[in-house]
Amino acid sequence: MAERKKDKDTHTGSAGPDRSVGELLRVPVGEAVHLARIDARSTPGAPGGKGAGKAGRKAAGLADTAAMGERLASLQERLYAAATAGDRRRVLLVLQGMDTSGKGGTVKHVAGLFNPAGCRTRAFKAPTARELDHPFLWRIKKALPRPGEIGVFDRSHYEDVLIARVHELAPRNRLRRRYAQINRFEQALADDGVSIVKVFLHLSYEEQRERLLARLDDPAKHWKFSPGDIEERALWPAYQEAYELALERCSSAAAPWYVVPADRKWYRNWAVAALLLEHLEALAPRYPEADFDVEECRSRLLTS
Amino acid sequence: MAERKKDKDTHTGSAGPDRSVGELLRVPVGEAVHLARIDARSTPGAPGGKGAGKAGRKAAGLADTAAMGERLASLQERLYAAATAGDRRRVLLVLQGMDTSGKGGTVKHVAGLFNPAGCRTRAFKAPTARELDHPFLWRIKKALPRPGEIGVFDRSHYEDVLIARVHELAPRNRLRRRYAQINRFEQALADDGVSIVKVFLHLSYEEQRERLLARLDDPAKHWKFSPGDIEERALWPAYQEAYELALERCSSAAAPWYVVPADRKWYRNWAVAALLLEHLEALAPRYPEADFDVEECRSRLLTS
Repeated sequence: MAERKKDKDTHTGSAGPDRSVGELLRVPVGEAVHLARIDARSTPGAPGGKGAGKAGRKAAGLADTAAMGERLASLQERLYAAATAGDRRRVLLVLQGMDTSGKGGTVKHVAGLFNPAGCRTRAFKAPTARELDHPFLWRIKKALPRPGEIGVFDRSHYEDVLIARVHELAPRNRLRRRYAQINRFEQALADDGVSIVKVFLHLSYEEQRERLLARLDDPAKHWKFSPGDIEERALWPAYQEAYELALERCSSAAAPWYVVPADRKWYRNWAVAALLLEHLEALAPRYPEADFDVEECRSRLLTS
Repeated sequence: MAERKKDKDTHTGSAGPDRSVGELLRVPVGEAVHLARIDARSTPGAPGGKGAGKAGRKAAGLADTAAMGERLASLQERLYAAATAGDRRRVLLVLQGMDTSGKGGTVKHVAGLFNPAGCRTRAFKAPTARELDHPFLWRIKKALPRPGEIGVFDRSHYEDVLIARVHELAPRNRLRRRYAQINRFEQALADDGVSIVKVFLHLSYEEQRERLLARLDDPAKHWKFSPGDIEERALWPAYQEAYELALERCSSAAAPWYVVPADRKWYRNWAVAALLLEHLEALAPRYPEADFDVEECRSRLLTS
């Protein structure tokens, strides 16, 4: 991440031809992560350039996100079509982040760019009694995207090394084993054709205060608030440390972690859309070829 | 439906203050349905009026659908929020229709108006071996929307009285019993807070030919085509009869059927959006009130 920090200061304000958004935001395998060194208000790789000014960059980001939406939907359709001919590939977007970091907003604005028929969204809350009766990956496996689908997880199996670690919900030994269990699980998913895109929405402590206050100010947002959110906020340093560990130990070649600065909502949406687009373009899914006689079918239809 | 036919000739081209879209399109409980008497190219209740011309009416329909999108998303959020406080209400849109009638297009364009976080979409294909080992409603029950969600079924339990009837996939006696089973099932859902909106996308025989030919003409659409579609098309009269029976026997006060003329895609999307909007407005979901001390939370946050 030290390299990223340096890069952030020198890049031109657009992912450009040199480095992809993925390269800018990816946590290198095995490297230590220091979240405090990453500016949550920064906008690495965003379009518009530094000369555009704050409003200009936001406008350029919004326009670029909308443009990516069409490309995302088109690639999604190809992926979905390919699955009808046996292609098992699919995409899984994992969203993690502190309260108010924008997991729900990302689902709404980025997952909302896809055709809902091929998009499987799942929010993981505190485990139910039944879920607690099973290994922690049990409920995750049941919610995975099918071949051809885009899966979106709002929280995930990482809660079992985040809140579980901060609140000591399991013995230390068992918690420690989970990182390796997660890596094996994700490797197996990747082997089965799942492109895993893990995004940590990196919010600043100050911005969280503003967003929680905004929820209190608007009665239409009270349902999103709980006094427990303030108690969790008090555990901020412990959560940041738990995130750093999870990012370090579980950013793999098969399933990299990306740190997306999330204080600016337009940038968050742009970056997640850009990451998905890079992964889908790398898959380059293709419409399957007809396994029937097109001309013969046309003749039969014309006389029907 | 005889009454509807009469009305179609006299209404002013907008649902207007007199009759809602639901009233215009609903299959009255217990009445015979004659699909051949309903023009699949008609646009009952659409905005724009007869003076607007064909292009003008389409433009007005598209604009109205987009405007309804914001209202739908807003009501969906309220429904979702209400569920967090114990409200069990939810909406289930059931889409049925012949091949190419636009079930998938409706999912894309109408379900796509909602926040994916609260929208559960499911397409029912031919039952798997495991599903066939269970009663026909088994797989349906597993896919139902949870409280606060919008559920969308692309095909449904009605396949078990449609394709199952046309292809005699079950003994006559068992098929006959299914209508009553479906009515009891849907009544139980309604009693549990599910607003069921059942839509038959009414396509003409000629328009189906055009749409199947269009799939053959475009290699990017070949994956949507199967020669079996032509064999099914040959059974058109049997399917229309099966639909008429299902609409007659299963249009109930708890779960009405709506016949949406589907030859014009813009009208199909407009009508389904309008039906959902009417149902959501009737529910009038409300944001729950705070069950915590807002001022006390604000003070604690400001010093955090």
